[in-house]
Amino acid sequence: MAEHLLTLTTDFGTRSPFVAAMKGVILNINPAARILDLSHEIPPFDLRHAAFFLAEALPYFPPGTLHVVVVDPEVGSSRALLLVSVAGQRVLVPDNGCWTLLAERYPDSLSVLRIEQQRLFRPQISSTFHGRDILAPVAAYLSLGIPSSEVGPPTHTWRKLDWPTPVHAPDGVHGEIVFVDHFGNLISNITGSLVSAGSWVGIGSPTAKPKPARLVRTYADASPGELVALVSSSGLLEVAIVQGNAAQQLGAGVGTPIHLGWLKE
Amino acid sequence: MAEHLLTLTTDFGTRSPFVAAMKGVILNINPAARILDLSHEIPPFDLRHAAFFLAEALPYFPPGTLHVVVVDPEVGSSRALLLVSVAGQRVLVPDNGCWTLLAERYPDSLSVLRIEQQRLFRPQISSTFHGRDILAPVAAYLSLGIPSSEVGPPTHTWRKLDWPTPVHAPDGVHGEIVFVDHFGNLISNITGSLVSAGSWVGIGSPTAKPKPARLVRTYADASPGELVALVSSSGLLEVAIVQGNAAQQLGAGVGTPIHLGWLKE
Amino acid sequence: MAEHLLTLTTDFGTRSPFVAAMKGVILNINPAARILDLSHEIPPFDLRHAAFFLAEALPYFPPGTLHVVVVDPEVGSSRALLLVSVAGQRVLVPDNGCWTLLAERYPDSLSVLRIEQQRLFRPQISSTFHGRDILAPVAAYLSLGIPSSEVGPPTHTWRKLDWPTPVHAPDGVHGEIVFVDHFGNLISNITGSLVSAGSWVGIGSPTAKPKPARLVRTYADASPGELVALVSSSGLLEVAIVQGNAAQQLGAGVGTPIHLGWLKE
Repeated sequence: MAEHLLTLTTDFGTRSPFVAAMKGVILNINPAARILDLSHEIPPFDLRHAAFFLAEALPYFPPGTLHVVVVDPEVGSSRALLLVSVAGQRVLVPDNGCWTLLAERYPDSLSVLRIEQQRLFRPQISSTFHGRDILAPVAAYLSLGIPSSEVGPPTHTWRKLDWPTPVHAPDGVHGEIVFVDHFGNLISNITGSLVSAGSWVGIGSPTAKPKPARLVRTYADASPGELVALVSSSGLLEVAIVQGNAAQQLGAGVGTPIHLGWLKE
Repeated sequence: MAEHLLTLTTDFGTRSPFVAAMKGVILNINPAARILDLSHEIPPFDLRHAAFFLAEALPYFPPGTLHVVVVDPEVGSSRALLLVSVAGQRVLVPDNGCWTLLAERYPDSLSVLRIEQQRLFRPQISSTFHGRDILAPVAAYLSLGIPSSEVGPPTHTWRKLDWPTPVHAPDGVHGEIVFVDHFGNLISNITGSLVSAGSWVGIGSPTAKPKPARLVRTYADASPGELVALVSSSGLLEVAIVQGNAAQQLGAGVGTPIHLGWLKE
Repeated sequence: MAEHLLTLTTDFGTRSPFVAAMKGVILNINPAARILDLSHEIPPFDLRHAAFFLAEALPYFPPGTLHVVVVDPEVGSSRALLLVSVAGQRVLVPDNGCWTLLAERYPDSLSVLRIEQQRLFRPQISSTFHGRDILAPVAAYLSLGIPSSEVGPPTHTWRKLDWPTPVHAPDGVHGEIVFVDHFGNLISNITGSLVSAGSWVGIGSPTAKPKPARLVRTYADASPGELVALVSSSGLLEVAIVQGNAAQQLGAGVGTPIHLGWLKE
């Protein structure tokens, strides 16, 4: 385990003092804490964006790394706060399902605790900032080495995030875009391993005719401006405009249908 | 004191090489420095935004933490550079008043030094980047443990930032919005402790009729899209649209009037 | 050398999980790595922006610091990956020329290796994310202290980035804007040391009449809103609008012509 290390992922941006306040709380409890920013640019309240982000980033970290994740549209309600052990990582997160996509991909040795031990919280709990008042101090104590079991009791119920599954047909797979990256590349929920010689890809609306995207191995196999499909670094089917922004140029985004076709078997 | 720790808060953004250059200067002097970004997204030259940010974030840090703050519209003029001990923190900052809101909230044991000891500066001082040429090296030497008193002489005069105070009337308090957070929530200068049963809140322009905002304990007590008022995590009266962006949807911002009303005593 | 230190500069933004994945890969190999973000806001694929950024930021770092730079429009093609020793720094970077401006300024003791030692890579190499699969793990091993020579063989050929050079005439110098900073200040390729008493500056299009910008020592020598020219903190001639945004207000940007004039000799 990387000692004293903990990461932060939020939808707070950094114009506001919220992330800075959390860092202060953590360092006040553990002055040796090594705080690593993963992102503060999760779009506000966007649990699906957070889910994809966590599933693609967290598994690369050393086993046992602590991750504080605060995308929390229901802060102040009775929703629980959880300490989830998943994919070898330890994730402190509101019970809103944003970690369940990660758990689907790494189903082994999952365990979930409810964070309830109030002596680990800040003395005054605001009703709108549990990241600062609960998750940050609990993470700081964990980074000092207290056992996970001290945060609260195990639980076997939690919220699960809906994640769209592609529909398989004899002539191909019908999926949808699940993530738009910083370059405007469109990442779908279709597994890249389904692509084979003779496959084709169409992207578009369910009503209009889908636009064909040429299947390539990498962006550099096509010319700047060309619409291509490829297996992304996440192993999923992706549509991109080479050195352009496919989301903007196609008017596409999360939910846009995508079709991977092949000759009927 | 958290050894070798120092934080950075600027209006530089990170597209430009300015923050990176400061980090390099610091590490060149103290290779063991632990540099923590608080924000580089303070809006350009916005001293009031910086003032609120510092007042809300810095008090959470361990006593003695070093903070370098560079929002400096008057760089190159004769304005002084200060090392301020306030709220238990040590703040290196141009003399522009952006720390005085913090000092009003934590008036005890304030001390202010003028940064004048040129042997702690970079050998060549540009006229437009004192963050890199003066504040970064001085902070690096302080993080190595030199006494604060070595940076320069004490001073008892400095710029004070104007900060609007609410107006109290028999039938309530008239305040204004002083900060808009990343979610578009509108934070006012009215103390949350003034809210009581029977209070009501109106937000709007001085000319048009103010819009009523329902008082709730937390966002989750209302439905998505509803206009609410609540005591924010900073202890101030806040107006928000649940899971929406109140600033955009109301066309409101810093300076927008807000009224907390009650029955005439 | 600052032990275990390495910096990251990319055009990935932080909405996407790419930077976080790289941090995970690095820490998995070297849990003691001290990762410092320089920028993830290099505009997508903008090699000239990256070149200026690196030339202005990297020389300030302690000798031997490791810098991972991923602006990589040609990822997956046969372009090489390099470990460049330049300006006392060690830079891991795709062979796209974004470091050659730095090398022009610091031509001494340049050495370049091709990164080819596959046992330092991740076992599976995607065709679209060499930052995660090659550069991050190689940097992590270097931060653990393996000799640079282990990454691959020396090379004497690499791509060079075109960088515009100003044209000298008897009555002055004709240059162009090469970088727009976060404040909208326009930085040119004209050396500030050419400015002398009696110089004047015009900025504008080659067709319309250039706008005169008054030469000052620093922003504070003029009034807010005034168009000024000055020697920037990088030592280059810069045009700015005091406390404003020159790029937006003039409609200027990279490539806009600028003229530094003087009386004919």
